[in-house]
Amino acid sequence: MLDLKDIYKDYEKYLDKEITLSGWIKSHRKQKEFGFIDFNDGTYLKNLQVVYDNKLSSFESISKLKLGSAIKVKGTLIKSNGNQDFELKASDITLLGDCQDDYPLQSKGRPTREYLREIAYLRPRTNLFNAVFRVRSVAAYAIHKYFQENGYVYFHAPLITSSDCEGAGEMFQVTTLDLEKIAKSGKVDYSKDFFSKQTALTVSGQLEAETFALAYKKAYTFGPTFRAENSNTKTHASEFWMIEPEIAFCDLEGDMDIMEDMLKYVVKYVLDNAKEEMKLFDSFIEKGLIDKLTKLVSSKFTRIDHEDVIKILKEADVKWEFEPEYGEDIAKEHEKYITEYFNGPVFIKNWPKDIKAFYMKQNADGKTVAAVDLEVPGAGELMGGSQREEDYDKLVKRMDELKMDKDSLDWYLNLRKYGGCIHSGFGMGFERLLIYLTGVDNIRDVIPYYRTPGNCDY
Amino acid sequence: MLDLKDIYKDYEKYLDKEITLSGWIKSHRKQKEFGFIDFNDGTYLKNLQVVYDNKLSSFESISKLKLGSAIKVKGTLIKSNGNQDFELKASDITLLGDCQDDYPLQSKGRPTREYLREIAYLRPRTNLFNAVFRVRSVAAYAIHKYFQENGYVYFHAPLITSSDCEGAGEMFQVTTLDLEKIAKSGKVDYSKDFFSKQTALTVSGQLEAETFALAYKKAYTFGPTFRAENSNTKTHASEFWMIEPEIAFCDLEGDMDIMEDMLKYVVKYVLDNAKEEMKLFDSFIEKGLIDKLTKLVSSKFTRIDHEDVIKILKEADVKWEFEPEYGEDIAKEHEKYITEYFNGPVFIKNWPKDIKAFYMKQNADGKTVAAVDLEVPGAGELMGGSQREEDYDKLVKRMDELKMDKDSLDWYLNLRKYGGCIHSGFGMGFERLLIYLTGVDNIRDVIPYYRTPGNCDY
Repeated sequence: MLDLKDIYKDYEKYLDKEITLSGWIKSHRKQKEFGFIDFNDGTYLKNLQVVYDNKLSSFESISKLKLGSAIKVKGTLIKSNGNQDFELKASDITLLGDCQDDYPLQSKGRPTREYLREIAYLRPRTNLFNAVFRVRSVAAYAIHKYFQENGYVYFHAPLITSSDCEGAGEMFQVTTLDLEKIAKSGKVDYSKDFFSKQTALTVSGQLEAETFALAYKKAYTFGPTFRAENSNTKTHASEFWMIEPEIAFCDLEGDMDIMEDMLKYVVKYVLDNAKEEMKLFDSFIEKGLIDKLTKLVSSKFTRIDHEDVIKILKEADVKWEFEPEYGEDIAKEHEKYITEYFNGPVFIKNWPKDIKAFYMKQNADGKTVAAVDLEVPGAGELMGGSQREEDYDKLVKRMDELKMDKDSLDWYLNLRKYGGCIHSGFGMGFERLLIYLTGVDNIRDVIPYYRTPGNCDY
Repeated sequence: MLDLKDIYKDYEKYLDKEITLSGWIKSHRKQKEFGFIDFNDGTYLKNLQVVYDNKLSSFESISKLKLGSAIKVKGTLIKSNGNQDFELKASDITLLGDCQDDYPLQSKGRPTREYLREIAYLRPRTNLFNAVFRVRSVAAYAIHKYFQENGYVYFHAPLITSSDCEGAGEMFQVTTLDLEKIAKSGKVDYSKDFFSKQTALTVSGQLEAETFALAYKKAYTFGPTFRAENSNTKTHASEFWMIEPEIAFCDLEGDMDIMEDMLKYVVKYVLDNAKEEMKLFDSFIEKGLIDKLTKLVSSKFTRIDHEDVIKILKEADVKWEFEPEYGEDIAKEHEKYITEYFNGPVFIKNWPKDIKAFYMKQNADGKTVAAVDLEVPGAGELMGGSQREEDYDKLVKRMDELKMDKDSLDWYLNLRKYGGCIHSGFGMGFERLLIYLTGVDNIRDVIPYYRTPGNCDY
């Protein structure tokens, strides 16, 4: 079955030949003697102009075909005099599926993105969302390609988990207990739950990924993670996909090498393999997007300690909304300043221990951990990683300080007893990458069916 | 950083050169003047023999290194007189991470698969599971490669869903309501739940995938699905990964073409790209496995109606445990018989309407639907698919007959109103494929961290 994409790939192959395509009517203009249909089958962003004339016996019925209808077109691909290189001169057009008058995409005006969220099941039919979700697919593949070609083992982290339950406030509970019965009986008995205990949806596959890195040297996850955080912002979703690579015998410097190499590969792959889509974003969503991304691919990423970043921020002649402080996190305005200061992506490394996670490698200074965030121009933090604490005693001590439950993580601790070694990893939120790649600035618009507080349609 | 895999790929490139590798001790034999370490860094199934002698000043301490320890080895790759082509003559061996004496994989005997499930975080370090999870990774990549190279858009179906809630008995509920508070207050108020309504984990992404097929022509999902089924069998897990392609302008015959083409591609890719692993399964898990799979790749799949299958079964000179009947499902023994009868894979199509799902295309006979199951020799049902009912009125009528709630699926019905067309798709359980590919017969052994009733560790 021929795809529109095949024709755009090498249209000369099909010139003056009879072809048949099935797809949808994107727009339809009729004149007395001719009709013009913008046709698309969804395999390529650009439409194909289909021309038909009144010599066709079915001219009258064809001219009544409505926008959104599914049709089969038979015709000859010919050189065009108009803006496009070629068009299809139809010899036959058959209606496959009619489109009713209440079709929400029928109207001439450009629907708002807010409105399109309400009809999420139709929005991939619009140019913008068609481009967004194709780039989502291309970027996902680029990520797999990068890791597979570099010898990583793809690992599916468990989604339902009994670990991490301390952060339970921000986790979704998973249960088969009957809530109405609990209300009636006044008792919760987790021994009767499906897994005979309390379980939740995972917030990260990293700890399990470490078990795979210590078997395969290089492993990565790419799967959904969940946060029951009651945040209604442009960058928060309750269900999103994460990429979490983990590498044995790799320190923080090696980790940054991989982060940089992977990001450049993925950006380049998308630029090369979604050209029309990227042009669309560049024209209508973020002017200069392609330049921004092209520049990233060839730029050298700066590497600088958190402490030195704070120094630069403090010395800057800027009136900050949040005053930068040693030992503290940095704000969005600081991220922006520092990428502009270095005119490119910046790895901020060696963060204050107290604001970072328990598993991060404790540096010799006793104050910092071997953690790193990557800040990119125009998007802020894109990835975060760290060398992991491989010393059993130090890790136990840190967990005790944080009053963590060591029993449920005994397996994680054991990794340090059985041939443990230096290892590092990082996490990249897939949607954050997509926002960066497309310029579309709301996470609701880069997820096919997004979940946010109060929103779970489909 | 050099990987063991690089050396196995082209060892002559490294012969007589000095190299450095980091990895783990898989076994260690010491003699008076020599020591032999089976070394592996996890990037390749086969070990590398490391030889060291008492000319090294550290001979004594090296000879005490324990199985499971992480080490760094520097040495020269030389031709070997033994069974292998090459070995590493060490000039320096450094301990990176010790392995304690209670290491569960320390013992000489081969641990049972049941025991290894209890230490799932260590089992990828054993040969068998190392091979299984590498094949899992290779097969996952093959699936992405197939669909991406054939122009499909990869689509992430939502995991938390408000659709499908009728099958709620077998779904996991997702909630942020406090169960203890429900018990105390005696009230369940879903308007206070995270999504302001009752939600559950998805059992399939197919319905949403149809929305993407009607925008892109070809789409596929590859993601986790969940079943809260209280089954303790070798083939049931509560959390597993599914591949669900969906294709517009494609009927049941076209669907079968794609199923056959995709399966052959994936099987061939795994045979070509996981050679050592497949040899291991062939030798130790399922004799004849490679032959079975090689035969599948070159075989022509039979296509036969369900009714004709029943006829063959009824005429067979076999004492059935379950008597085959027109209009009914077929049992495992029937699946086995029919693949042996045709000596290869069999598509059984046009199933009785009453035992199949509501969305399947109703055939003109009024009794069957355009559904298909693929039965393969030695594994039974591997995939299932169907043409979808594109007729709005017929679909509504069927949902009414089954007393289904149409309101929550209005978007799904609307697809039939707005340029709907013939379309088809199928589903393949990823773990079912892995069982077929590896010969490992328990689903618990092809999932890194499996979830079954009562089991949710890690």
